[in-house]
Amino acid sequence: MSIASTMQAVYLEDGKVTIRDVPVPERPSGFALIRLLKGGICNTDLELQRGYYGFSGIPGHEFVGQVVEADAPEWTGTRVAGEINLACGHCEWCRRGIGRHCPARTVLGIVNHPGAFAEYILLPEGNLHRLPDEIPTNDAVFIEPLAAACEILEQVSIERGRRVAVLGDGKLGLLVAQALQQHGARVVQYGRHADKLQIAASTGIEIHAGEVPPRKEYEFVVDCTGSPDGLDEAVSMVQPRGTVLLKSTIHGEVAVDTAPIIVDEVTLVGSRCGRFEPAIELLRRRRIDVASMLSAEFPLERAPDAFIEAAKRGVLKVLLVAGSE
Amino acid sequence: MSIASTMQAVYLEDGKVTIRDVPVPERPSGFALIRLLKGGICNTDLELQRGYYGFSGIPGHEFVGQVVEADAPEWTGTRVAGEINLACGHCEWCRRGIGRHCPARTVLGIVNHPGAFAEYILLPEGNLHRLPDEIPTNDAVFIEPLAAACEILEQVSIERGRRVAVLGDGKLGLLVAQALQQHGARVVQYGRHADKLQIAASTGIEIHAGEVPPRKEYEFVVDCTGSPDGLDEAVSMVQPRGTVLLKSTIHGEVAVDTAPIIVDEVTLVGSRCGRFEPAIELLRRRRIDVASMLSAEFPLERAPDAFIEAAKRGVLKVLLVAGSE
Repeated sequence: MSIASTMQAVYLEDGKVTIRDVPVPERPSGFALIRLLKGGICNTDLELQRGYYGFSGIPGHEFVGQVVEADAPEWTGTRVAGEINLACGHCEWCRRGIGRHCPARTVLGIVNHPGAFAEYILLPEGNLHRLPDEIPTNDAVFIEPLAAACEILEQVSIERGRRVAVLGDGKLGLLVAQALQQHGARVVQYGRHADKLQIAASTGIEIHAGEVPPRKEYEFVVDCTGSPDGLDEAVSMVQPRGTVLLKSTIHGEVAVDTAPIIVDEVTLVGSRCGRFEPAIELLRRRRIDVASMLSAEFPLERAPDAFIEAAKRGVLKVLLVAGSE
Repeated sequence: MSIASTMQAVYLEDGKVTIRDVPVPERPSGFALIRLLKGGICNTDLELQRGYYGFSGIPGHEFVGQVVEADAPEWTGTRVAGEINLACGHCEWCRRGIGRHCPARTVLGIVNHPGAFAEYILLPEGNLHRLPDEIPTNDAVFIEPLAAACEILEQVSIERGRRVAVLGDGKLGLLVAQALQQHGARVVQYGRHADKLQIAASTGIEIHAGEVPPRKEYEFVVDCTGSPDGLDEAVSMVQPRGTVLLKSTIHGEVAVDTAPIIVDEVTLVGSRCGRFEPAIELLRRRRIDVASMLSAEFPLERAPDAFIEAAKRGVLKVLLVAGSE
């Protein structure tokens, strides 16, 4: 396959989403050049657009692609997802197998590494996961956020049968609720949107739309609200000695009442990216309904419209589709 | 011993500390009537004075007393310390042995139970701990706050030899640093007051006075600052995947930057009261220097002056001494 010298890429700058022609990246040794198949717009991408990280460049970190070129010839032609943290490989964190916390890391489409919303993507071969044939490409776009949802289970021990509350019914909330339910927890999800919560309900999750959650009720509460009020609300719902997982980033300072955290000896656990393996396995076994979370698809060159769509209330996942399969 | 019908008691109301003559409490079955020997003024007492909990009544929860009357005659005449949470004894929390989190609890001198700064104190016999002769009364006043310091070790597993940072050099910070050092951690304490930190240094703790702490350095950081800025500072000092213990209550909402908590997957653990046994054992074996933390003693009837003294900068523990031993 011949590769053109330039490619179309989504570009974010000063809050504007545009399409640019940029050079196809040179592939260094150890890296794979990947042709984008589909990408997913994440809330983080919308936050980059809002300027929260002073980001300018090519965004995108949820994607499925096909390897065009790599050091190891067996990669060529395979359909892959890619872990988004590019770690140094030799620091203490990398040696402990947690390159996701490597202090020298770059992050695909977020920190100092061009993102996936372009015709071609560069990632280290070690970041790639070959996709099983059973996972449709549309589903596979959800591997990265589903891995972030599964990260909770690497951080805290939630025994089967325990009741867990998930606060928030956005994309991440729906993935977290389903991942925990599949793990064997009895999940109760609180949100404002009956239609979104219906996706959770259809997988057996107990849902409460527009209700004030009970106080001091749950041993575990996961805040997926993305709202500055989410943390205080999650703390109000947790039992003494219980655990609140912080799954959604809020920008700037949040006003928090720390007194109930101390008096009730609550544990708060920040949670970010996760390993891809459990997410791939859940999707391979078709245990997570991601299809119902697809709101729209746009061709890559219509990314400006796709970003507008993704930011609308009630919209869940918006995909970008590369031109030629 | 005959008991008078009235007694002197410290009274807090509208920010004023006064001495009142009040009835000696009637002893219900299951309770012990205890004559105060010495009481310690805690930061919480100063906060009650500042009106943070809408408290009015007899304050005081750090004390040593002598049992005057109890159901079980063997208590009479013994020198005791007393756990401060009065639990219902039959709820889920009490059955699990954590009456400190009983939702129906009252708390000595803090929540709906008259405090220890009075000639006589009422507490359930089950709350009492007979004091070993090896512990001087002055030292024993520190059992309650030292138990709160030791609570950290019931909540998180800190292996011997691990480096732990303690932020803050007040009374609680000095007790936390010493308790963790005795446990086998390598403690590094940060504060503003070289003289207070000297107490820690003389027990082998590494101290840093007035220095900006390093970033992302410690696996464990304990916030004992009592300051609204303490939490953000503690989070800045902790490694990715590290743990911050919240040991000091701040009133009202605190502005917190949650992004580093999530990005670095930090765990925050609120921590309050602890079991008395480990604190008594540490003091019996003279492993904690509390004597150096004594700043002043006042007779009970001079409690108004004692509260003024305790609130001064640089002052550590102020004791109230009951009139007649």
